This record gives sequence, structure tokens and C-alpha cells, in this order.
Amino acid sequence: MSLDSIAPSTVSAPDDWFEYPVQVYPHHTDYGGIVWHGTYLEWMEAARVDCLRSRGMDYADLVAQGVELQVFELALRYHRGVKMGASAIVRTRVASFQGVRMNWDYEIVSGDRQVLYVSAQVTLVPVDAQKGKIIRKIPLILQEIIAKL
Amino acid sequence: MSLDSIAPSTVSAPDDWFEYPVQVYPHHTDYGGIVWHGTYLEWMEAARVDCLRSRGMDYADLVAQGVELQVFELALRYHRGVKMGASAIVRTRVASFQGVRMNWDYEIVSGDRQVLYVSAQVTLVPVDAQKGKIIRKIPLILQEIIAKL
Amino acid sequence: MSLDSIAPSTVSAPDDWFEYPVQVYPHHTDYGGIVWHGTYLEWMEAARVDCLRSRGMDYADLVAQGVELQVFELALRYHRGVKMGASAIVRTRVASFQGVRMNWDYEIVSGDRQVLYVSAQVTLVPVDAQKGKIIRKIPLILQEIIAKL
Amino acid sequence: MSLDSIAPSTVSAPDDWFEYPVQVYPHHTDYGGIVWHGTYLEWMEAARVDCLRSRGMDYADLVAQGVELQVFELALRYHRGVKMGASAIVRTRVASFQGVRMNWDYEIVSGDRQVLYVSAQVTLVPVDAQKGKIIRKIPLILQEIIAKL
Repeated sequence: MSLDSIAPSTVSAPDDWFEYPVQVYPHHTDYGGIVWHGTYLEWMEAARVDCLRSRGMDYADLVAQGVELQVFELALRYHRGVKMGASAIVRTRVASFQGVRMNWDYEIVSGDRQVLYVSAQVTLVPVDAQKGKIIRKIPLILQEIIAKL
Repeated sequence: MSLDSIAPSTVSAPDDWFEYPVQVYPHHTDYGGIVWHGTYLEWMEAARVDCLRSRGMDYADLVAQGVELQVFELALRYHRGVKMGASAIVRTRVASFQGVRMNWDYEIVSGDRQVLYVSAQVTLVPVDAQKGKIIRKIPLILQEIIAKL
Repeated sequence: MSLDSIAPSTVSAPDDWFEYPVQVYPHHTDYGGIVWHGTYLEWMEAARVDCLRSRGMDYADLVAQGVELQVFELALRYHRGVKMGASAIVRTRVASFQGVRMNWDYEIVSGDRQVLYVSAQVTLVPVDAQKGKIIRKIPLILQEIIAKL
Repeated sequence: MSLDSIAPSTVSAPDDWFEYPVQVYPHHTDYGGIVWHGTYLEWMEAARVDCLRSRGMDYADLVAQGVELQVFELALRYHRGVKMGASAIVRTRVASFQGVRMNWDYEIVSGDRQVLYVSAQVTLVPVDAQKGKIIRKIPLILQEIIAKL
């Protein structure tokens, strides 16, 4: 679906993005034949977990240590729909830190990187899984990862 | 999960909201025992469709006439996690129109309306399902609904 | 979608079923305009949890006591597709027990109970959440529920 | 979760399977920390579509020609739970044809192929997307694929 007259799309330079390729299967779509808008959150989470792993952090290990990275805020803009069978690339990078908040940028683009489908931002906060409270002092393991990002 | 120190929650007065009650089942949750953040988009869509129906618009009928209301933008803030088995209320209302854009406000609150879990905004645009293009002139059927909102 | 020539549908008498009503929203559907086949597992889970609650068992309470009812086997037959916007009824009942196995029957039928969409069976086993092992002796709380079913 | 005493697991020889690797992300899991039982249907669909593509059939092309391969029956047995962060392999192959029915076998195994998590069967039927009816004569495009399987 072309929403381009409202949202002119400029695809960013690829150099500093982590890229996670996806394929659109039937379960990703809705009655309109394109990806259902909530499906993108699944892809974005997968890209985030893989990006962290590529920097040496296994998310399941972090959780085993009692720390979760919870989504605190997110914002998405839908530029064009992605059709069933299409291939796409979910790009992400850590844009900034604000105290314990970790801000991620996203772009979902076509397989040939010429078309922007979705742009998004997600903010994570570290949470103590036992207490269910935000961790005010960033755990050492996270600090090490952050230093690499 | 309590994110309340970052986001003090003020629950709105209930009078002008459309309310859609939900129950948290296992498939809504993730490994952390609370609702997975993307699940809220399903609940919000259901609340929106039911709100429109309560105003006389059957969404499936609109689609049968070739018009889809597509999500163009969305933003969410997560205040507190919702536990497995909990009941919650998804509240929504049309906040404003900007040309063809229809802006919806959301609050997801506890069953007793005392705790704010999620606040969100969603912008929809009418799309011609055949052409995949935004409809610049609001269809008559939508104008009638809008007049009632 | 009519698969009726392969699977002639006979709708059961309603008296001994627990009924859970559903509405088909966009996120339930796929590109074909009907409910995606995996969506039914979400509805069936919700019906099961509500059926247990109607017999006095809160599933979240059971989990808090360290016991999970895990799906061990399931089988579905799809008779007809359910269209976007349709209303349907998920019916379930405990068909039998075999040792610790609890066998549930399902029918998903149209809102007017005239058309059979899906028929299914699900087998649950009680699992000790800490050990990750099947519980060989049925916990007292479950025995009490079973006695009522 | 070990359900092995009920279901002793024998992992099949890998030679004639199509293999689709997966990674367990948070959205795949439920409150129990393992993959929610319905998630496997998404993985199985993805494996099926990729298996067909590896034989020269693009599923989106088939749909564009008005033919859908709909799930008619499915059966799953859960042997062991798959933990968050784990990697697994979804294996599939076409087991047999009965008239227009295409029967697929599945095994979901650990990344090292030593542990069987899930075994399953899925039956597909070709459906005329316009009429919503099973196609009694297998379309030429499908016959060619079938000849290769």
C-alpha cells in the first residue's frame, strides 16, 4: 500500500546498521494481502536480539542473570505495505543512551534496499526481573555491551 | 513490571471512552510472565473495530466496499506490565481528524480502572484497496461515521 | 472457504459444551481474507481457560502453585474458513481422562450454530513448573476440579 | 519441559528432510519461559513455503494465479519444550499424496539434532481462491512441483 505521498521515503546509508533479513509468510499478513501492522514488532525484536548477540550479548543469558530489557516506548510510521512473499531487511542500531534508557532506531526496507516500508524507534530499560523495577545502575554486563555499541 | 517511577500514571475519567474488556491468556504473555509488548496492538485493533461498530460502522462492510483503514502511525508508552490471568480494559476514542487522518487515543487500564498499563496513539488513513493509495476525499460512508464520533 | 465436500459437517447438540464467543478482527486473518489456521489455537486456549474458571479453577492461581497444564497433543480439522468480521463460537468440554491426561473436545461453529468451521481435540498434562516434569499424581486442586467436570 | 516418559523421542535420519533453522525470540515464548505451543504452526508454515521454493514453486506466485494451499488437517505431539534463546531446526518433507491431499511430515529438533521437540503432520488441499472450493483436478503448476517432490 502506497502511503508515500504523506511520507516521502529516504533510505539511509547501510554502513552503520545491523541488518536482519525477513521473508513474508502467510501468517505475517492480514486480509489485505500485506503484512499486518503488528507483525513488525516481532521482526524488530528478533533484529534487536540478534544485533545484541553480534556484539557478544546473549539475551537469554542476561535474563538468566535476572535482568530483562523491557520495551518502554515505541513509535512506528508505516510508509508502504509489504506484500506476501516479499523479502525485506530490518535494520537497527542503538541511536543513543539517556541514563538507563537505550534508544534504538529502525528501518524496514525492501530486499534491494530501494524502498522504505517502515521507520521506527524503540526505547528499552533494564528491569530487575525479580522485583519488577527499573534498574537504576546499569549492570556491568550491560555496560560492557554498551561500550562496544 | 513497574515502570512507574519513569512514568507516573494518571488514569483518565471514563465518560468519553469506548471500553473493550480483555483477559490475559497464556498466548498473550512472554517468558517474563507478563503480556508481550506487541500483544497490545491486537487488543487495540479489536477495541477500534468494536468502537466503530458501536457507531454503526461494520469494518468488514467497509472493506467489502473497497476501503481499508490502515495504520499510518502509532506510538505506545508502557507504564506497567499486565500479568497472566489479569483482566484489563482497553479504552479508546477518536481524538481528532487532520484531513483524512483519523487520530485515536488509547489507555489500557486495570479492571478496576485504578492502574494505567499502557497509553497510546494510533493514526489511521483510508486507503483504496484496489489501487493501494490513500483516499484523498473521505468516502461518504466514513463521513457519516465521523459525524457521529 | 468450503472444504465441505471432504468433510461433511454435523454440528453437535449445544447442551454440554462450554461456549466462548469470538469476533474475527483483522489480526486473526491472513492474505486469503479468512482466519489464519493457527489463530484457532489462541481461541481454543482462551475457551479452555474460561471453561476451567467457570468450574472454579483460576489458571493463573494453578501456575502460581507451580503446576502448568501443558498441551501434549492436538489435532484439528478445518471444515470451512471463517471470514473477517464474522462472529463464531468456540465450544469445548472435557471428553475424558486417561491417567494424568486430560482430553478436550472442540468445535468452532458460526454465531447461529448452523455451520461447523473447525473440529479439534487437545490433550493436556499437568507439569511441575520447577522440574519441568509431568506430575504423575494429580494434584489435589486438580482432582477437585476434575470431580466437577 | 520433559514430556519424554510419555513420548520417547527418536530423531530421524536427516537425509531426506528439508531443514528450516529457527531461533527462539521472546515473542515466541509464554509465561512458562518456553515456546508457546501455537508458535510452532508459524515455523511449520515458513518451513513449508521455503521447501516449496527450494523445489521451484514460489507460493506468492501460486496465490497470484488464484490457487491457495489450505491447511485441511493437522496433528502435533509435543515431546519437549524449547527454551527462550535456543536454536532449533524445523524439518519437513512431503510424505504422500491422496488425491488432491498433500501430506507433510514434520519434526522440530534441537540445533544439534539430538533432541526431538515436536513431531507433526499437516495435510494441505488446493483451493480455488475465487470460488473458495477445493480444486478437484490438480493445477499443472502443482503437478510439476509434485513430480519433483
